[in-house]
Amino acid sequence: KTFPAWRVDSPQVTPTRRHNSRSTSLIQNGSINVVFCKGPSRLSTRSHTCGELCSRHIGEEVTLCGWVQYLRQDLFVILRDFSGLVQVLVPHDESKHELRNTFCGLSVESVLMVKGRVKRRPEGQENKNMPTGEIEVCAESVEVLNTCRTLPFEIKDFVKKSEAMRMQYRYLDLRSPQMQANLRLRSRLVMKMREYLCYQHGFVDVETPTLFKTNSWGIEFLVPSREAGKFYCLPQSPQQFKQLLMVAGLDRYFQLARCYRDEGSKPDRQPEFTQVDIEMSFVEQGGIRALVEGLLQYSWPEEKGFVTTPFPCVTYEQAMQDYGVDKPDTRFGMKLTDVTEIFQDTRIGWMRDAVTQSHGCVQAIRVPEGSKHLKGKDMESLKNTAQTQFTQPLPLTSCCLASLLQRPLLGKLRLQCAELLEGHGVRVRDPAVFHFLWVVDFPLFLPKEDAPGQLESAHHPFTAPVPQDVPLLYSEPHKVRGQHYDLVLNGCEVGGGSIRIHNSAQQRYILQNVLKEDVVLLTHLLEALECGAPPHGGIALGLDRLVSIIVGSPSIRDVIAFPKSFRGHDLMSNAPDFVVEEELKPYCISVVWPSVEGADRSPAPPPED
Amino acid sequence: KTFPAWRVDSPQVTPTRRHNSRSTSLIQNGSINVVFCKGPSRLSTRSHTCGELCSRHIGEEVTLCGWVQYLRQDLFVILRDFSGLVQVLVPHDESKHELRNTFCGLSVESVLMVKGRVKRRPEGQENKNMPTGEIEVCAESVEVLNTCRTLPFEIKDFVKKSEAMRMQYRYLDLRSPQMQANLRLRSRLVMKMREYLCYQHGFVDVETPTLFKTNSWGIEFLVPSREAGKFYCLPQSPQQFKQLLMVAGLDRYFQLARCYRDEGSKPDRQPEFTQVDIEMSFVEQGGIRALVEGLLQYSWPEEKGFVTTPFPCVTYEQAMQDYGVDKPDTRFGMKLTDVTEIFQDTRIGWMRDAVTQSHGCVQAIRVPEGSKHLKGKDMESLKNTAQTQFTQPLPLTSCCLASLLQRPLLGKLRLQCAELLEGHGVRVRDPAVFHFLWVVDFPLFLPKEDAPGQLESAHHPFTAPVPQDVPLLYSEPHKVRGQHYDLVLNGCEVGGGSIRIHNSAQQRYILQNVLKEDVVLLTHLLEALECGAPPHGGIALGLDRLVSIIVGSPSIRDVIAFPKSFRGHDLMSNAPDFVVEEELKPYCISVVWPSVEGADRSPAPPPED
Repeated sequence: KTFPAWRVDSPQVTPTRRHNSRSTSLIQNGSINVVFCKGPSRLSTRSHTCGELCSRHIGEEVTLCGWVQYLRQDLFVILRDFSGLVQVLVPHDESKHELRNTFCGLSVESVLMVKGRVKRRPEGQENKNMPTGEIEVCAESVEVLNTCRTLPFEIKDFVKKSEAMRMQYRYLDLRSPQMQANLRLRSRLVMKMREYLCYQHGFVDVETPTLFKTNSWGIEFLVPSREAGKFYCLPQSPQQFKQLLMVAGLDRYFQLARCYRDEGSKPDRQPEFTQVDIEMSFVEQGGIRALVEGLLQYSWPEEKGFVTTPFPCVTYEQAMQDYGVDKPDTRFGMKLTDVTEIFQDTRIGWMRDAVTQSHGCVQAIRVPEGSKHLKGKDMESLKNTAQTQFTQPLPLTSCCLASLLQRPLLGKLRLQCAELLEGHGVRVRDPAVFHFLWVVDFPLFLPKEDAPGQLESAHHPFTAPVPQDVPLLYSEPHKVRGQHYDLVLNGCEVGGGSIRIHNSAQQRYILQNVLKEDVVLLTHLLEALECGAPPHGGIALGLDRLVSIIVGSPSIRDVIAFPKSFRGHDLMSNAPDFVVEEELKPYCISVVWPSVEGADRSPAPPPED
Repeated sequence: KTFPAWRVDSPQVTPTRRHNSRSTSLIQNGSINVVFCKGPSRLSTRSHTCGELCSRHIGEEVTLCGWVQYLRQDLFVILRDFSGLVQVLVPHDESKHELRNTFCGLSVESVLMVKGRVKRRPEGQENKNMPTGEIEVCAESVEVLNTCRTLPFEIKDFVKKSEAMRMQYRYLDLRSPQMQANLRLRSRLVMKMREYLCYQHGFVDVETPTLFKTNSWGIEFLVPSREAGKFYCLPQSPQQFKQLLMVAGLDRYFQLARCYRDEGSKPDRQPEFTQVDIEMSFVEQGGIRALVEGLLQYSWPEEKGFVTTPFPCVTYEQAMQDYGVDKPDTRFGMKLTDVTEIFQDTRIGWMRDAVTQSHGCVQAIRVPEGSKHLKGKDMESLKNTAQTQFTQPLPLTSCCLASLLQRPLLGKLRLQCAELLEGHGVRVRDPAVFHFLWVVDFPLFLPKEDAPGQLESAHHPFTAPVPQDVPLLYSEPHKVRGQHYDLVLNGCEVGGGSIRIHNSAQQRYILQNVLKEDVVLLTHLLEALECGAPPHGGIALGLDRLVSIIVGSPSIRDVIAFPKSFRGHDLMSNAPDFVVEEELKPYCISVVWPSVEGADRSPAPPPED
């Protein structure tokens, strides 16, 4: 007989410890048969998981717990748990008619505990498509642990559901094999990352606060405190804390950090997301990059292939030149090629205009098999992109696209060509292949969009300049390169970091003189740099995005257990929601209803959701 | 010569990958000497940590990075990093006078990179109190990586600092050996917990949202959304999500979960804290308890002794009877003893009153050596406690304290006796000993404090009743015991959990009929229970409190990197802080200044902080 495996851990059970009739009876029986269950069945009321059963178990008595996937011909119940499916044979001899009746009345997705014996399936009835297809379990008893009402959709990967439906009944959506696999892969990946960082490199896992001080207005969530007018904010990243930990001499810090960004409108962003946050003292750029390469190689899921290191590395300038983008997808070629010289003496009017202009040039993308596949509608769509993004008509020859100066457009056209070709069945980007790329030597500052005469940080104001560019800080700051590095995977930015400024005078100069910022908000950081700050640097990897690329999902919502909708809503619990006026009082805030602005003391009844 | 160890990982270095002059020169030199550094020095600019050096390293050339702990007689610099201290010998021969000058001008806590050779200290100069006391490092070169201004306090454990000072300069406070040890122990403990859960028991690490829907008013932080009147809340725990993950078939979930509670006034609470959050399907109470026992045994720091399992277990009733509290410190005896019978025929007036009353009793605590130590002032303080808490004078005999009925008072007096004895040097509670205890069979409901006729959940409304008490739900709900278990360590509650209700009808009945709650807020959970919810249960351990007990710290602030003050302030960054009016607009809220309530459209200038 099979008993729950938690008996294994504590054979010295005292009667007061157990409260369910089952274990009490075990103790009364006197003799305890201990089954050494494998990991996921230890301490459980089951003896095995459904998916693990195979011919090795033939003859064994097992206790399974799971969901009714479906009933077949009143003869079989397919039972499912997280590990897979197994066929349960419903006995048909008269002595077992009560057992049979229980099975036959079951609704799909009911929860059962089945005890029975594992048997080899009769010859010819094996199912090669099912990992447990060699065996079946002859039911000897069944307990219905819970029933299930009619569901809004079936639990099968191939059943198409609307996004809203999936979100509203997320607990059902998560039962699908794909979502189960995604969350489990994520958990395994993260655990391996922790092993690598803790055990191979001496990192310390430190939690940093999420109730912080506001810094960058507009994209930070605010949290009202009970002191009138004072707010915490939910930080975009633990940037300041990780640097302060280095000043604190913690040496090597990492955290799977929850971060917050209030920019609901952008596609495939979440108001809260997770980053693998890393910071090291006494390190140079190469050290961080080698660390991350090793991290990904070590933690990469075996079934997804081997990650080769070191990753290739290009400068920002080179990436823009070759791909028209700072996060190139290097799984395919079609690089931008400068053909200005070839067309130096051209008589084609629009090209002439280009080459004679100062800094004018003609660039081409060679699209392999382009002339074969890209016709009519495709060409139109490429032209449209050019026109809408570039504001002037883009002539297209049969096998090349040409344009002037603006590389980002060309980068876009390159990707569009890839998409169009793929639409025709040409394999351009292999989804099973992972191309990592470092992009380095970004400019440290960029002209402000709304005031091009002023500079702003290309990444953040704590990035250290490239050492040989430091003199330029004081003369031509726009020419200074930063010690920043981006990690790109298949054309997506999956990480970014930098060597930080550890010199307080340099940090103050950049904040005050270059960026013209109010340094009062950063007093604590500037003070910290004066107190013996070590050289340090780090990186943050976007975990949600990384996992979504690994599992080949188009959306990060498929690798987050309970994501928000595009509009930032939790469609299951209906968050955010209205709160009673009473609840706002302790926080000294009141709602300003848009329609009745200026008269918000007695708010209008909340509008319909 | 010694080079950074990141070279080890990627010998196929290409020139574009490296940007610092140091590694470029390595490549130019042609031959690379690779040093296989141990964990914390891999990929670093140092070759060794200060604290690891010992006689084994004599003769080796090392590169150390660290802080100047102090200078001694212009001859020695004591260099510190996270791993410990090492003595650096400053050369005094004339050829090295520049090097000597650099050293001699250093301020304490400056950051150095020292290259030198490890030597055995001259005989008689060894320092047995210093792990590296057998050796010293003969400096050959030094680079000052950063200087340090005069600090507000010295970086030494024995230097007394005010709590406010420690918080304001947390990055200095964290440099102390004790704080470094605390954070590192916490990181190691958590990593071991993860190993145990993932690798031994098949748990899946799942992150749940912190932007959720409001549930329990008054102690949840609100986060305004951009939709007028709608708020997220920061959840007190992932309770609902963990249960929904079980409904989702995830089987075994854990998370190191950030939780939020807005109750700033309570001592030693933090607005955000961390719990080890666990939930399992197909499990009974004994399974969860055995899991947690194994978890603590496995992850317990070796230097803190061995955790013996299973933990003893008492019922709530027994705990109250023996200790007058539901979280007894079992490191010492002094149990409450019912002596009513002895005094049945007493003539002492106040005792007579007690024993003749219905349910009246006389209880005693025997305080070992009490008559020897507890005199005058001590007895006064015990009487005071009794008087203020019990509202009637408490007679005290020389070696026993007696009282009526109210056990919590007796529980308090018991602890007070222990404290008083310890004040006299009697060893009552051994701080190096860890006594775990399960407390079970709590009442499921308690009378509401403000309306004793009504019931409220003793823990939370999702706790399942003890099976044999289920019939009482419908007749005498106040008599129902819950399948709840508390984990107590040395008199502190460090965890609590329960088997949950998985039957939607039962859950609905308890919410509606027993607790008289509005079930609309929990629609999603009730619906989920109708969709094939498995039997499940779990627990949450308070990580901050657990670690603080392990390291023997009186406050959880000593095991949190950046804690808030008693009043919920971050004294370093000055959070929470005022925000500009402009920033509130997108969130459709405005501040209601207490003094000018009703006229909040143009707030008065914020008061002084």
